[in-house]
Amino acid sequence: MTSVRIAGVGMTPFDSHPERTGRELFGSASNEAIDDSNVPRGDIDALFYGNFMGAFAEGQNHQGPLMADAAGLSVPATRFESACTSSGVAVREAVSKIRGGEADVLLVGGMERMTNEPTSFVTEALATAGDELYEGRAGMTFPGAYALMANAYFAEHGATRADLAEIAVKNHAHALENELAQYQREISVDDVLEAPLVADPIGVYDASPITDGASAAVLVSDEYARERDLDAPVSITGTGQGTDQLALQDRASLTRTPAAERAAEEAYADASIGPDDVDLAEVHDCFTIAEVLALESLGFYDRGTGYQAARDGETTRDGDLPVNLSGGLKAKGHPVGATGTAQIVELTKLLRGDHVNSDAVSDAETAITHNAGGTVASVTVHVLEVVA
Amino acid sequence: MTSVRIAGVGMTPFDSHPERTGRELFGSASNEAIDDSNVPRGDIDALFYGNFMGAFAEGQNHQGPLMADAAGLSVPATRFESACTSSGVAVREAVSKIRGGEADVLLVGGMERMTNEPTSFVTEALATAGDELYEGRAGMTFPGAYALMANAYFAEHGATRADLAEIAVKNHAHALENELAQYQREISVDDVLEAPLVADPIGVYDASPITDGASAAVLVSDEYARERDLDAPVSITGTGQGTDQLALQDRASLTRTPAAERAAEEAYADASIGPDDVDLAEVHDCFTIAEVLALESLGFYDRGTGYQAARDGETTRDGDLPVNLSGGLKAKGHPVGATGTAQIVELTKLLRGDHVNSDAVSDAETAITHNAGGTVASVTVHVLEVVA
Repeated sequence: MTSVRIAGVGMTPFDSHPERTGRELFGSASNEAIDDSNVPRGDIDALFYGNFMGAFAEGQNHQGPLMADAAGLSVPATRFESACTSSGVAVREAVSKIRGGEADVLLVGGMERMTNEPTSFVTEALATAGDELYEGRAGMTFPGAYALMANAYFAEHGATRADLAEIAVKNHAHALENELAQYQREISVDDVLEAPLVADPIGVYDASPITDGASAAVLVSDEYARERDLDAPVSITGTGQGTDQLALQDRASLTRTPAAERAAEEAYADASIGPDDVDLAEVHDCFTIAEVLALESLGFYDRGTGYQAARDGETTRDGDLPVNLSGGLKAKGHPVGATGTAQIVELTKLLRGDHVNSDAVSDAETAITHNAGGTVASVTVHVLEVVA
Repeated sequence: MTSVRIAGVGMTPFDSHPERTGRELFGSASNEAIDDSNVPRGDIDALFYGNFMGAFAEGQNHQGPLMADAAGLSVPATRFESACTSSGVAVREAVSKIRGGEADVLLVGGMERMTNEPTSFVTEALATAGDELYEGRAGMTFPGAYALMANAYFAEHGATRADLAEIAVKNHAHALENELAQYQREISVDDVLEAPLVADPIGVYDASPITDGASAAVLVSDEYARERDLDAPVSITGTGQGTDQLALQDRASLTRTPAAERAAEEAYADASIGPDDVDLAEVHDCFTIAEVLALESLGFYDRGTGYQAARDGETTRDGDLPVNLSGGLKAKGHPVGATGTAQIVELTKLLRGDHVNSDAVSDAETAITHNAGGTVASVTVHVLEVVA
């Protein structure tokens, strides 16, 4: 089985881009990734592409052919949709296809436009990632669902809003100099606590923003990288995927995310590593409580203790396990379909040493992504390693 | 490289099902496929699932976890969307994953609910499979787009509405006894010609209907089938995928479908066969003109001659190359996301000898699918063979 190397990465600034279409955003990210890879366009076998709400945001389903064209390719193009892990799933299947010898070079990526519609419309569009029949019709939105999870977590483990606020503060601090991040602005715990509540205990600063953006990566087989003498030091050495009941009401616990646990277990076994081997992580902090659950499901913290991580400085830039050095979904932004590949982009840059925050982790060799859809009903986890 | 066997198939009646949710439809089809396969549920590695317009029809994106649950599975579930070839793409990637040794047993399938919304709404939803910016905003709908293609074909090759009518008549005749088909009713050429026009020259009977339905198949590696001593005589021996410009205006010709030509070329080469080896076909006759273009792109007819096939009785039940013995999209129905897998279901039954129309092709050993999205911007082609 071949290993899979990341030959090139690219992403647009994550921001509000009212003047740019989805195809233009993805064209920009993918062209950057292809240029970065030094792979000739003609060698690319297919495009695996993630998008969540194009049907709503641009009246545009069937984006595969459009995005292949935007990337200057006329190759088979396939769209994956798995809510906020749409491009995470695209990465997973691309890795699988290259490993199985079914392709040598794949362009993977994702795009989302969200700011061109009113926030209330976007909130409703996002709610289609939950169970329409048993959640949507009852008025459940994602801030509401994560509020339930946060309140349950508070009741079980004694965490407070101030603990969660530390996560937002950390991720804003990480994004401070990341020019691709939506918010490059420091915030304080007081800012978080004093901000308006969206759904108690989730306040405005506990939630990731609405964002436009695209991200892309060129994945190649190890053999291809060697033959072409590519400079591609980072490999994807582990992949995992987990699925859970879509509706919260069908789950045994509101404070555990078994889909993430299964995805992590599979990815660790696949890469033959464990949580102790990981030097840095990009996790799916769509809400601050989500980062806590991610840290626990990835095995970094025992159940009920993950909320202490940011507060105690362990997951900050100078901590033992920096988490979301990109700024995370919270401060980097969260254009849903682009988030999975964006985590790959950020970690590749961090491990290669060309990310703005690379100096914080100059010895890092092993990193992990955690990308979740819905209320963690779909999860992909990927292990990235520097391989000689 | 292992070959891929079809261990079991299932589908709901294609019809209007106002009382059934999408999850119930898919649960029904997938349970039938799993029962038919004799594969224990615990052996299924993942679900690859196709759906096109759930965001519109049921306010439900992120259907993967929902459909895994409906099938009684808690395995990774991935949704593919590629317009009307959404489940065709799911089949292709499932075949690839099993061949590459990345999975042994996969459930593939698709579902669409369409009749629960007004026709005008469905027409708009379907239009999101075209280019929103350059076609949708100009008022282009799919009957309109295929009308342009039909008129161009008439002008170039001298075909008439009466020639196309023969295709509708044939496909209705094929569906006559197929109890899973939406229309089990004979029609005449005059019926077609006298029916109201939707978009000149496309009349009501030139167009496939709006349909609810689901379909599924269990795909296994050859090794798995042997170990378990499964009765699975039909294999998928070739797969091809092609992509074209999404907008008609960007193409060199309105009467050729290069994405289908590329997909066919790849699938034939993959299976080491040619058009002359094919005994029967299920092709994407979303409109009658689409069946003509399909026959030409698959290499069965020279360019500009495919319109004669049904008229001359060559693609009818008793012809040399029966096409759409299921009734095709025209008479069997076209629940978009379910159509790709439904073609696999129908051909498997025809080749196994347990389809209502199997007696027409009792010696058939090789069959082909042609499943197209948009105005043939995305195409998957699969070769099925009876393998000892």
